[in-house]
Amino acid sequence: MSKNLTKREEDYSKWYNELVVKADLAENSGVRGCMVIKPYGYAIWEKMQAQLDKMFKETGHSNAYFPLFVPKSMFEAEEKNAEGFAKECAIVTHYRLKNDETRPGKLMVDPNAKLEEELIVRPTSEAIIWSTYKNWVQSYRDLPLLINQWANVVRWEMRTRLFLRTAEFLWQEGHTAHATRQEAIEETERMMNVYADFVEGFMAIPVVKGIKTANERFAGADETYCIEALMQDGKALQAGTSHFLGQNFAKAFDVKFANQEGKQEHVWGTSWGVSTRLMGALVMTHSDDNGLVLPPNLAPIQVVIVPIHRTDEQLDVINRVVDELVSKFRKLNISVKYDNRTTQKPGFKFAEYELKGVPVRIAVGPNDIENGTFEVARRDNLSKEIVSKDGIVEYVQSLLEQIQGNLFNKALSYRNSHITEVNSFEEFKEVLDNKAGFVSAHWDGTPETEEKIKELTKATIRCIPLDRKKEEGICIFSGGKSAGRVLFAKAY
Amino acid sequence: MSKNLTKREEDYSKWYNELVVKADLAENSGVRGCMVIKPYGYAIWEKMQAQLDKMFKETGHSNAYFPLFVPKSMFEAEEKNAEGFAKECAIVTHYRLKNDETRPGKLMVDPNAKLEEELIVRPTSEAIIWSTYKNWVQSYRDLPLLINQWANVVRWEMRTRLFLRTAEFLWQEGHTAHATRQEAIEETERMMNVYADFVEGFMAIPVVKGIKTANERFAGADETYCIEALMQDGKALQAGTSHFLGQNFAKAFDVKFANQEGKQEHVWGTSWGVSTRLMGALVMTHSDDNGLVLPPNLAPIQVVIVPIHRTDEQLDVINRVVDELVSKFRKLNISVKYDNRTTQKPGFKFAEYELKGVPVRIAVGPNDIENGTFEVARRDNLSKEIVSKDGIVEYVQSLLEQIQGNLFNKALSYRNSHITEVNSFEEFKEVLDNKAGFVSAHWDGTPETEEKIKELTKATIRCIPLDRKKEEGICIFSGGKSAGRVLFAKAY
Repeated sequence: MSKNLTKREEDYSKWYNELVVKADLAENSGVRGCMVIKPYGYAIWEKMQAQLDKMFKETGHSNAYFPLFVPKSMFEAEEKNAEGFAKECAIVTHYRLKNDETRPGKLMVDPNAKLEEELIVRPTSEAIIWSTYKNWVQSYRDLPLLINQWANVVRWEMRTRLFLRTAEFLWQEGHTAHATRQEAIEETERMMNVYADFVEGFMAIPVVKGIKTANERFAGADETYCIEALMQDGKALQAGTSHFLGQNFAKAFDVKFANQEGKQEHVWGTSWGVSTRLMGALVMTHSDDNGLVLPPNLAPIQVVIVPIHRTDEQLDVINRVVDELVSKFRKLNISVKYDNRTTQKPGFKFAEYELKGVPVRIAVGPNDIENGTFEVARRDNLSKEIVSKDGIVEYVQSLLEQIQGNLFNKALSYRNSHITEVNSFEEFKEVLDNKAGFVSAHWDGTPETEEKIKELTKATIRCIPLDRKKEEGICIFSGGKSAGRVLFAKAY
Repeated sequence: MSKNLTKREEDYSKWYNELVVKADLAENSGVRGCMVIKPYGYAIWEKMQAQLDKMFKETGHSNAYFPLFVPKSMFEAEEKNAEGFAKECAIVTHYRLKNDETRPGKLMVDPNAKLEEELIVRPTSEAIIWSTYKNWVQSYRDLPLLINQWANVVRWEMRTRLFLRTAEFLWQEGHTAHATRQEAIEETERMMNVYADFVEGFMAIPVVKGIKTANERFAGADETYCIEALMQDGKALQAGTSHFLGQNFAKAFDVKFANQEGKQEHVWGTSWGVSTRLMGALVMTHSDDNGLVLPPNLAPIQVVIVPIHRTDEQLDVINRVVDELVSKFRKLNISVKYDNRTTQKPGFKFAEYELKGVPVRIAVGPNDIENGTFEVARRDNLSKEIVSKDGIVEYVQSLLEQIQGNLFNKALSYRNSHITEVNSFEEFKEVLDNKAGFVSAHWDGTPETEEKIKELTKATIRCIPLDRKKEEGICIFSGGKSAGRVLFAKAY
């Protein structure tokens, strides 16, 4: 294992790419734009999945599974949605290979096996799911329909980066149907809040809740709610979205129900999703020049124990003490690894677990055994302490909580100090160029101004914060009237 | 909800298709050959996944995720594997749709967005995974590599049936790499045993462990181990396979390691998988003319409680008693549903939960409240009993175990009574035509005889049982020498 990680100061983007690979989270595959999620990275994703799945079930949702493919005619039924995804989708046109007679041992697409209708590999599942809901909803008694799917989706992105933007990614997508507009809006907001609670409480990443402008809205939605996070380089990252679909998909797929008066109405829809992109946010929020820093709630290994010894006899004694400790941790559901490999030196192991972001490292040598102590090191602030054997388990348990809280607070204080209010376009550009982060500014509410600002500065409106204060003002760009400040930023 | 289920005696195949849909397990989608797994069906699959995942982790495996697509040149690298899957695979050839100018609002494949190399939607992931393993394995210290993936795969089957044979299905696929042939064979056998333990212990389906003949072997494997189950109509179903890949994929993808002496060797491989096909086996092993019968270990709802009342006051009293009971069940991790909807009559609810295979139903009316009793009904044998309030929880807990055991024993006794030894081809045909089930017969060991028998009778060799007794004999078809009996059957 070679560390030699590029420093964040030098090249943040290079640091990220190297870290994702060196920490064994993911790597590029032999398939353009598609990644391999390696066991260590996947173990973190599994923890995220388990927690989200629990939160979805607690809010009344069930999982189901819908087809990977969407026939073209179905795909194009909701026009805005189709338009939004048409330019970057993988299309299946044939269903058989045959021997290529000009190249022995090689295969070619069999021209006689062309599909009557092309199939789109789902970039998102509204079309296939709403075509199914048509048969599931007849009466108000069938509503609400609260369904989630864990799945892979494909978007043919031209420039890809591990986790942040890949041609194939893993996600969950919720798709719900309701009897009233109000209920659907409540669901949209509920799921935005579930995402915010998860990202803040488990990933230790503070988020701003808000609404997207029309330009940034999901194709086919009437309103997109989002949670926006801020990375260490001052760029924003959209961490989750929840869409109020109005009756758009219900109308496109003719999904109606008989209301309590027996009258036919179109249902109201929502959809919401988070993806393996969150893995990128996790890395870029907490990690440092030494490697990953993982919040204890998502760390596959929360505590690693490394023996320090010169002789086999010393190791025997340490093994006995540690075995007891390990079983105490396990009883408290603390995930612990005892690394007593003799093929590697302690220093090598220290560097490895630092790189992999293990929150707490315990070292134990012959002196510790004699003194009844352990050396406990924190990954988040790299501090160490000698802790007595008595109460070590409770000490570590509370330390894990402290680390979780500390990571959130650190990220929060960075984020809060990187929301800058500006009142002129000069100031706006200056902040973007130097300090970066979120820039809070007045905007006239038009897509034209938004586009112009994006062209000139690469900054987009990340969201109209839900909790923004009432403050009328003047658009920094056009001088037109503004109903309140919005958050701009350059973004991933 | 209309029951009107076709009887098994009348048309077993129709009964199955109807039941899968009526019990809300799955349905056909608008995409040829692809199914929608509905929430109730998916909840059973989730329980299967959770248990299997636990068993894989206990045997040292980690999960990871590899791309959905396989470039054609990678796909064809292991020739036998490629040949085995080439005839039924979905092929992505383009990556963009554009507006169809001849049909406003419609889309067409953009001919300018043709991929340089076609991508095969994975029918199985050996190719993509072994192309990755090349970079993961350098030394004997990197071995064994023990990885599993939960994923969707696509095989372009022409005739599909819900769960049993679908163009897209969900599965897990284990892919391991080892330093020695012996270790790889041990892994292959270990995972066959894990599957057998799962299918017998959790699905309550008895299986025969065995080895496939060369004809029925996985394309690219040196040996395929399998577990074979028997459905109620006397047809066999392959419930899981575990393949010893020899060095075939290591050679095709040049995966080598330095052994302890520093010499380069190709690694040895295995792969193993079970799929949503198991859902079909579950339905066809236990269910009856009234609907699903689910083993308690996999039932999303293990106990349903239905109140029987005429007045609101009666319901109030029942609610209080049941609420207490529900929380007692939950403490024991028994999954319980209290259905006190007032929109449906008890008879309707009884039929619904019978159809959905809920193992235990408790009914409670005013008389029960007075007498301190409950009416407890079993789904497996449709028997009922009046049980005193005291000890009801323990009674139900042990009842669930009894039902689990009873289902297995019932299936075992059916299976055992449907293994028929025959010594002539006349007998063989007679058994297949009338009694069906497994037919144990001598075979000369040649693919030609196997093919001929299949042509004439549609029966295939399901496996060479691992525990077959030593018994030389004469092939029922060719009269040639046989080293022992093999199991034939018609199969799903």
